[in-house]
Amino acid sequence: MSQYVFGVDIGGTSVKLGLFDVKGILLDKWEIPTRTQDSGSLILPDIAESIRNKITEKQIDTELIAGVGVGAPGPIDSAGVVHKAVNLGWDTFSIKVTLEELLQMPVMAGNDANVAALGEMWKGGGQGSNDLILVTLGTGVGGGLIVGGKVLTGSAGAGGEIGHIHVEDNETESCNCGNKGCLEQYASATGITRLANRKLKESDKDSILRDGEVSAKTVFDAVKEKDELAMEVAEEFGKYLGNALAVIAGVVNPDAIVIGGGVSKAGEVLMDYIKPYYEKNVFHGSRDVKFSLATLGNDAGIYGAAKLVLDI
Amino acid sequence: MSQYVFGVDIGGTSVKLGLFDVKGILLDKWEIPTRTQDSGSLILPDIAESIRNKITEKQIDTELIAGVGVGAPGPIDSAGVVHKAVNLGWDTFSIKVTLEELLQMPVMAGNDANVAALGEMWKGGGQGSNDLILVTLGTGVGGGLIVGGKVLTGSAGAGGEIGHIHVEDNETESCNCGNKGCLEQYASATGITRLANRKLKESDKDSILRDGEVSAKTVFDAVKEKDELAMEVAEEFGKYLGNALAVIAGVVNPDAIVIGGGVSKAGEVLMDYIKPYYEKNVFHGSRDVKFSLATLGNDAGIYGAAKLVLDI
Repeated sequence: MSQYVFGVDIGGTSVKLGLFDVKGILLDKWEIPTRTQDSGSLILPDIAESIRNKITEKQIDTELIAGVGVGAPGPIDSAGVVHKAVNLGWDTFSIKVTLEELLQMPVMAGNDANVAALGEMWKGGGQGSNDLILVTLGTGVGGGLIVGGKVLTGSAGAGGEIGHIHVEDNETESCNCGNKGCLEQYASATGITRLANRKLKESDKDSILRDGEVSAKTVFDAVKEKDELAMEVAEEFGKYLGNALAVIAGVVNPDAIVIGGGVSKAGEVLMDYIKPYYEKNVFHGSRDVKFSLATLGNDAGIYGAAKLVLDI
Repeated sequence: MSQYVFGVDIGGTSVKLGLFDVKGILLDKWEIPTRTQDSGSLILPDIAESIRNKITEKQIDTELIAGVGVGAPGPIDSAGVVHKAVNLGWDTFSIKVTLEELLQMPVMAGNDANVAALGEMWKGGGQGSNDLILVTLGTGVGGGLIVGGKVLTGSAGAGGEIGHIHVEDNETESCNCGNKGCLEQYASATGITRLANRKLKESDKDSILRDGEVSAKTVFDAVKEKDELAMEVAEEFGKYLGNALAVIAGVVNPDAIVIGGGVSKAGEVLMDYIKPYYEKNVFHGSRDVKFSLATLGNDAGIYGAAKLVLDI
């Protein structure tokens, strides 16, 4: 009987690692730097070494380890093959096979945002759900979808790419992905800042936002102070995100929608702007979904990665 | 070893039934009327009787039957429970349990549009795919999603309700579902007719369409004659449907998109209007999807229903 499982979340600058028991209690967590030189060829060996060191340190019998789950930024298919992860310098290869050879234990791998969704469902804001949308509002907009309790990977590992769904025909600026009018351009921290700066330019209204540097945080702080211009920006943000979530929910019929990422620190006020649009435009079969805030923060990835292995 | 499987597709006026071998060869098909009186309580007993008669007629050993798959119009969850099917008079009950008791063999049930998607993947326009979007353009717009080879059911059986995703903020007329601006209002046969009638009213342009009653068929016939106004209508249709498919593909990352329903009889010309918008606005990870026309027509439902059972 397995007693332990490792969860690994690979980011562009650091790798987070967690040691869990099989019930999902986090026993230890630590970080190592992500060495992206040499086409990222050191990353998996570094992880393997770090895990071996932890096993020695904790005197764990390797027979009792269920395996190692890995989340990484990039399209990763259900066989554990990554199809180019630009941030890590990776081309196309099997994370699963490579790390299994290094560690001689079962490995599962998935896209970091999808894996975070699994984490939030297991131990975070989406507990009790079986069909979940996680939307992470950070520098960009990431997304993870759980369908029937499993991560929706898609045919080439690009499932749940919520940030790049097209929501605006009239956008003139390009998104990082090359398209115009992606959700990310309106609902990420950067997007909210952009909306606010546009609004400040177009409008003559007084606003707290005119006093310093604008960010998603200052916008929602100003909303809490009932700043009218900031509330207009929040309204626009809520329209794009609420309508987009209504469309996604029409497609996958979730029972929970979890909002995470840096922007979610603004708290429940976000829901006041998102939910009215969601409820107005969603198909009635998905109207009663439960909205909540993510609770695992930066640990969602290691939780979900561990769960990937336990779900084999 | 099972040799046979039944596929059943329940419609509002008739029930289609098919007898297949387990490789998917259709051995026999027939129809019975759908008796919707008494809250639809006769429908499943009628189906059971018809299947028993067929077993007797064909002298099939019941030991050799894998089971019976059923598709029906309404939200049906993964346990085979229907949650109100208005067209059939049904409230909430388990199709699976009821029909298993009547027939003493394994039963699986799913939403008719989702089941049709499974049929097109198995033996129709989506063969070879494992992640597929089926969009059926008929009186309404139906949809079925296959994710990782399985029907996407959703938390309450409302997965794949593509017809009711919100695509237009400025719509003034209501959709049948009660919302405004659903895809169905622009991409169904009825929707295309509506777009054409609007355009005929607003424009002074000469058009073949002014000569008789307008329908989706006359619109696409006129497009083939290079009728300018009809081409404008097709462009609008293509924009709504192409953009919507781009969003859905961004969510589920399919390898195939299959277009079915009465409108699809217009043929490849549809693709000329859908694909440019799709390709412009879809996330690059889903750009190379294969578009095709449905090939099973009204038989997609019985094929998919049979496959439901074989996938148990």
